[in-house]
Amino acid sequence: MSSGHPLHQILHPRSIAVVGVSANELREGITGWLPRLLNFGYQGHLYPVNPRASEILGLRAYPSLKDIPETVDYVIFNIPARLAPQIMEDCVAKGVKAVHVFTAGFSETGKEEGRRLEEELSHIIRGSGVRIIGPNCMGIYHPKAGLTFYPAFSKESGSVALVSQTGAGAIRFVLLANERGIRFSKVISYGNAIDLDASDFLEYLAGDEETKVIACYIEGVKGGRAFLKAVKECMRRKPVIILKAGVTEGGAAAAASHTAALAGSEWVWGAFFKQTGVIPVESLEEMVDVVLALLHFPCPRGPRVGIVGRGGGIGVIATDLCERAGLSVPSFAPETRSQLEKVNPEAGASVRNPVETALGLAGASQFYQEGLQVVDADPHIDFILTHIGVDVYGRVGSLEETVDILIETAKTLTKPMVVALYAGASLETIAAVAQAQQRCLEAGLAVYPTVEAAVKAVSKVIRYHQFIKETRLEQLVC
Amino acid sequence: MSSGHPLHQILHPRSIAVVGVSANELREGITGWLPRLLNFGYQGHLYPVNPRASEILGLRAYPSLKDIPETVDYVIFNIPARLAPQIMEDCVAKGVKAVHVFTAGFSETGKEEGRRLEEELSHIIRGSGVRIIGPNCMGIYHPKAGLTFYPAFSKESGSVALVSQTGAGAIRFVLLANERGIRFSKVISYGNAIDLDASDFLEYLAGDEETKVIACYIEGVKGGRAFLKAVKECMRRKPVIILKAGVTEGGAAAAASHTAALAGSEWVWGAFFKQTGVIPVESLEEMVDVVLALLHFPCPRGPRVGIVGRGGGIGVIATDLCERAGLSVPSFAPETRSQLEKVNPEAGASVRNPVETALGLAGASQFYQEGLQVVDADPHIDFILTHIGVDVYGRVGSLEETVDILIETAKTLTKPMVVALYAGASLETIAAVAQAQQRCLEAGLAVYPTVEAAVKAVSKVIRYHQFIKETRLEQLVC
Repeated sequence: MSSGHPLHQILHPRSIAVVGVSANELREGITGWLPRLLNFGYQGHLYPVNPRASEILGLRAYPSLKDIPETVDYVIFNIPARLAPQIMEDCVAKGVKAVHVFTAGFSETGKEEGRRLEEELSHIIRGSGVRIIGPNCMGIYHPKAGLTFYPAFSKESGSVALVSQTGAGAIRFVLLANERGIRFSKVISYGNAIDLDASDFLEYLAGDEETKVIACYIEGVKGGRAFLKAVKECMRRKPVIILKAGVTEGGAAAAASHTAALAGSEWVWGAFFKQTGVIPVESLEEMVDVVLALLHFPCPRGPRVGIVGRGGGIGVIATDLCERAGLSVPSFAPETRSQLEKVNPEAGASVRNPVETALGLAGASQFYQEGLQVVDADPHIDFILTHIGVDVYGRVGSLEETVDILIETAKTLTKPMVVALYAGASLETIAAVAQAQQRCLEAGLAVYPTVEAAVKAVSKVIRYHQFIKETRLEQLVC
Repeated sequence: MSSGHPLHQILHPRSIAVVGVSANELREGITGWLPRLLNFGYQGHLYPVNPRASEILGLRAYPSLKDIPETVDYVIFNIPARLAPQIMEDCVAKGVKAVHVFTAGFSETGKEEGRRLEEELSHIIRGSGVRIIGPNCMGIYHPKAGLTFYPAFSKESGSVALVSQTGAGAIRFVLLANERGIRFSKVISYGNAIDLDASDFLEYLAGDEETKVIACYIEGVKGGRAFLKAVKECMRRKPVIILKAGVTEGGAAAAASHTAALAGSEWVWGAFFKQTGVIPVESLEEMVDVVLALLHFPCPRGPRVGIVGRGGGIGVIATDLCERAGLSVPSFAPETRSQLEKVNPEAGASVRNPVETALGLAGASQFYQEGLQVVDADPHIDFILTHIGVDVYGRVGSLEETVDILIETAKTLTKPMVVALYAGASLETIAAVAQAQQRCLEAGLAVYPTVEAAVKAVSKVIRYHQFIKETRLEQLVC
């Protein structure tokens, strides 16, 4: 059970002290840790620590941690790096459970002073029971506990966890994911990882019942064996996606100056992915795409796809993209073809695979109503890819209706479907398509802005399911 | 000179007859070939051919081609395939220069009847001087001559040509490109290519002074040797990009039922790209990206990039993406680093490569004014990649100002710069970013929605320049 895990208490602090509340932050009102937690609805006790104030945002302020009369579970350091050791001594004396060192300026600077300060912090907490998240990181976003590190994050809780060495990257990832309807269980940005590392968070998340999918941004890990063990434990129960950053030569150097990580070679990580079945991705955008597929694209029986859309050449490109991604695009059965000929008898429209819908959004709607089930029933295919190009169809007005028909028809299908709803070209179509994508997401359809993004994500998820099946691991998603 | 080329007359028809103007088309008013040409501003003579009308849209209609008293240069077939041979006989009798067979239902159907009709058309024109574009295609978009096959295309003329076997794909490509400020010299959608083929169009475009960049969507070519010769002729003078569709097994089958093309193996095409230096792309979106880089990204001395942006992890990801694309991200010189430390003294912000700007859009603006020239002067780099993530910065309001500062600073740089302005996540940021991208494009900056798209495009363009340099070909772009 995850509630018995030491991280459980850290993720559910009953009281938080923020050390280093600057006047500047308070003037702006919403930036800064204190207003962020207040506005997000944190329900525990909040203690500002500032020697030059007696009250901050209606909360009593204390000159130092030691002056707080009650227990403090969690402390956020928002102070210059050189002051960190002294405050860490206070944390040990106070008996806090965890410290989130937001402060940067440690080993990632590449300077002796930063390395020394980091060592000092590690030394101070040794044997004390105090755990450190960071330094040089954003800490915890945990909507159920009212914790956040960014005001615009959704207050709704969900089933996806993120474990991330990058802070700004975590913000971008959560925002992109939130906009696509994805909600989070726990997000941890942990920076230089001088104490708690990816292994600790993964070990906890493996047993966290709220978490169904785990995404990670990792630059380097310190204990390779512990990490491998934690990842395998997760993969026994739920899918893990890793964006391993700093794999190229330049990337490794950049990682060293970002979180002081020892990035490890591309070769080692290649072997790691192969052995564990973890889903590898190369960008934050792709990581969101894969999470979306894990949530909304049910496991098909295999990699054989039936492609439905308008535009012969666009269908050929889609076919190449599918096959390059490791999917296959077989011919439909003769019976399927003859039925499809009745749905769209237009000259020049293909009834093989890919199949072309009739002209315009009206033609697409008609095909969804009459042809989609025919494709669904074809014995040669395992799932459907539908692509809709609004700009080519020429009129935006009926997009909503067409998408509604697609959503209704999707409910009647026996096989999974993924939708590529091309992002618009003009401002008008951009907005209309964004809204149509929202409708699809709300209906639980996996929808992407390009065929390329759709098939990259879906093929990786299919390979994941294949790995799980072959290695006979128990898992919950498929 | 291209004006002496037989295609010159075909692209500049003084008179056009549209055979098969349906009542349905005319009711809608803007669809259909006749209203399309009228609205686009075609200045030559237009002759509707329809046996059941005497006047259409204010133009005198003729029962047949032979009844038109004047010369007809160009005929558009908008009739069922089975009627095509009879009308083609009329074209030969009338002595027209070219026929655009919009009509589909020929060999792409895979049926004997379609193949037979195609052979008949080829037989009819043999020795007559009549040339065919198509069948199963959209024909010509040539803004200077008032020709279009889609009403929303820009009436402005430009420097990019497109030669495309797909019609819907050509529409999507032109629309996407138009929205990014790209304008076209000539676009030809030529479908099944029973007469005029890619080789003919490329041979013409090689000598067309208006055309500086050639993009192609090709499923198959009939005369391999003529094609290679035409491509090489183009590459001596201007860059050629080819989306070779139907290279995978499924893709080749799809191409066969789209334009009846013999797609050729991936191996053969791989050798073709290597030998000619033609830029290969895999999707229409990527083709637009590469065209944009050819137009707005001046040739750098080499592949060494200096990366500027906010977010340490985002910088590491950008570095990996650059190096995976074949670019290199070297460390800055010590002198550069110490100067950058003054621009952004913030703890935790990297001054190596990638370099981090200070917090928020204000921090980015400040960096552009004070730090971009420092990066530009670094002896280890050949060009700059700037990435701007609006969602992470949190506020959309000052994006316009920040982008204006970037544009102003770009003018003072000695090295090329490419910009990744992340597409927004919410509807609000999507619109703001789209407008900011427009400002960049109007200022001649190559701008992309992701780092991945930017570095894919830029690295291909750098490789193209490298190829040209190594093979010592005379060319106009760099």
